[in-house]
Amino acid sequence: MLCCDLHSALAPILAKYDREQVVVVGDVMTKGEGLEAKGEWPTLWLNVNEQEKNLATVTKIWDFFFEKGLTRHGLVIAVGGGALTDMVGFAASTYKRGIDYINVPTTLLAMIDASSGGKTGINYRGLKNSIGLFAQPVATLIYPGWLRSLPAKEMLSGFGEMLKTGLIKATGERIEAKGDLWEALLQYDLETMPIDGLTPLIEQCVAVKEAIVASDPKEEGLRKALNFGHTFGHAIEANGEWLEANGRIPHGYAVVYGMIAELYLSVVKLGCPREPLQQLTQLMLHYYGKPQCKCSDRDRLIALMQQDKKNEHAAEINCTLLRSIGSPVINQVITPDEAEEALDYLFSL
Amino acid sequence: MLCCDLHSALAPILAKYDREQVVVVGDVMTKGEGLEAKGEWPTLWLNVNEQEKNLATVTKIWDFFFEKGLTRHGLVIAVGGGALTDMVGFAASTYKRGIDYINVPTTLLAMIDASSGGKTGINYRGLKNSIGLFAQPVATLIYPGWLRSLPAKEMLSGFGEMLKTGLIKATGERIEAKGDLWEALLQYDLETMPIDGLTPLIEQCVAVKEAIVASDPKEEGLRKALNFGHTFGHAIEANGEWLEANGRIPHGYAVVYGMIAELYLSVVKLGCPREPLQQLTQLMLHYYGKPQCKCSDRDRLIALMQQDKKNEHAAEINCTLLRSIGSPVINQVITPDEAEEALDYLFSL
Repeated sequence: MLCCDLHSALAPILAKYDREQVVVVGDVMTKGEGLEAKGEWPTLWLNVNEQEKNLATVTKIWDFFFEKGLTRHGLVIAVGGGALTDMVGFAASTYKRGIDYINVPTTLLAMIDASSGGKTGINYRGLKNSIGLFAQPVATLIYPGWLRSLPAKEMLSGFGEMLKTGLIKATGERIEAKGDLWEALLQYDLETMPIDGLTPLIEQCVAVKEAIVASDPKEEGLRKALNFGHTFGHAIEANGEWLEANGRIPHGYAVVYGMIAELYLSVVKLGCPREPLQQLTQLMLHYYGKPQCKCSDRDRLIALMQQDKKNEHAAEINCTLLRSIGSPVINQVITPDEAEEALDYLFSL
Repeated sequence: MLCCDLHSALAPILAKYDREQVVVVGDVMTKGEGLEAKGEWPTLWLNVNEQEKNLATVTKIWDFFFEKGLTRHGLVIAVGGGALTDMVGFAASTYKRGIDYINVPTTLLAMIDASSGGKTGINYRGLKNSIGLFAQPVATLIYPGWLRSLPAKEMLSGFGEMLKTGLIKATGERIEAKGDLWEALLQYDLETMPIDGLTPLIEQCVAVKEAIVASDPKEEGLRKALNFGHTFGHAIEANGEWLEANGRIPHGYAVVYGMIAELYLSVVKLGCPREPLQQLTQLMLHYYGKPQCKCSDRDRLIALMQQDKKNEHAAEINCTLLRSIGSPVINQVITPDEAEEALDYLFSL
């Protein structure tokens, strides 16, 4: 739910809970900016990134819930980026067999992606989100005001997921698209990134995601359309984490690179028009830069894709591809040779 | 589902899974007795008791799933007592956001209680099942043959939960009772414990539980009837764990003691007839022995009850009581004085 004021949006929800049964888990970066200003709720501040999205941090969150005496009827408000909201959602959904939680995403990526849809979880054994469960938040409150202080790189990362939404949008008759989202996204001014112009696009992307999730909450079919760009993207991201010299690749950047590889395969295997591939390539070269992977990383990337939890069978590579903009095709099996070809194309740009 | 042969019962279920996507997690005590005889599936043997029903053991189970390359479409067969099936259910339901699992309970207590109903979890910070979630197994296969080698103390523990089922049984019109379960349980020969005579009683108890769970899977109302005896019972059990000198009190024994305290309160507060209290007291004195708690434990027991996760509000004591046999009344709030009185009654027997 898009909102202009967090406190007014929270009030009717909080009315259903005992006052002393509400706590906040917040990213320390958001301290002083928002919810805790009135000192209303006990708050656990965490400094969370992908590396700390792990079981040790979850135990800190559980311990905080126990210390504050939360019962099964408690409520947790998660304030932060996707790593934080995913992890707090997991901690809440497993505390006393599940208590309610609200997501207040503070990054564009979390607003578009992590904070709706009910995927909760942590990284385990180096595999992203490999432990977790599906548990819907009681509400997701999207307040675009948080974006004013967000660095450009994080804005671009979130915008990567918005581009994905524009490419998969019109999935049959189930989703009502308002105008052409992909064209609107291409026209958005990524140089100055005005928040006002972004807000209606955020709203539309969230509506698309929520409609897809409502029709397939546990990702047994249609929801896999949301994974477009993510088979290659996750591998590039995981590989990027090992390449410490280059720093971590932001998730949305990895999804942009992944979409280029998967659009290439869509052209080759499903006859998708080349235009979206060319448009996305232009955007990538102009704003995102080339991926920091080399041809020598190819084998490792392919091995990572074979371990992806989206696969139906062990060691198989499963992708969502596009027949055209708005026509995703799920469960496309890719051979290692095809994956190599797509990576070669990406690295040649 | 009651079954006479595990392999035939498993066959139609396993037909839905890839052969290499099936693994077993079994209690080492059951090794050689059953499923692994044909060496069909990779098996993780665990030596599980209440003390090892913790996060460290869950990570062992997750690691096993990763090592065996289980995908989201994998299946785990849990073979053991309630501590094992609860924990394997939790590990499976959080691995890659949830994979299927089957429960094969090998103790009477697990057959009656833990293995149906979808409560999964582990102990955390000394609190029983305080981390977990609701996740139904795809099947529960009850093979009474396991009971032939079960020690009498464990049989009596399971029988305690059966007695509870007999006391709460006829909850309104929702549950169809076949004859009078409580009377049938009182007539069962606890001296020789014949398996043949027990089997129809097990079947009936499981049917009662499944009907209650189906009507209220997340324990928002009627399901709380199953907690009869458990507010006092859990406290006695947790206290018993600290009294190392006396050893652990088996769960079903603690439930019998808890039911006596709660039947006493049912008589005092709701006008329940005294007969079931007298009948259960006779059974306790004859077969279970008096509880190994003293009056000096009272304050600790009351503090434990105030932390119970069944409570609606922090520091309040919430019980299910009986108006009569078959008429449970949920959400009864007990004052510390009333709790003290009930414990005094129990300790005076």
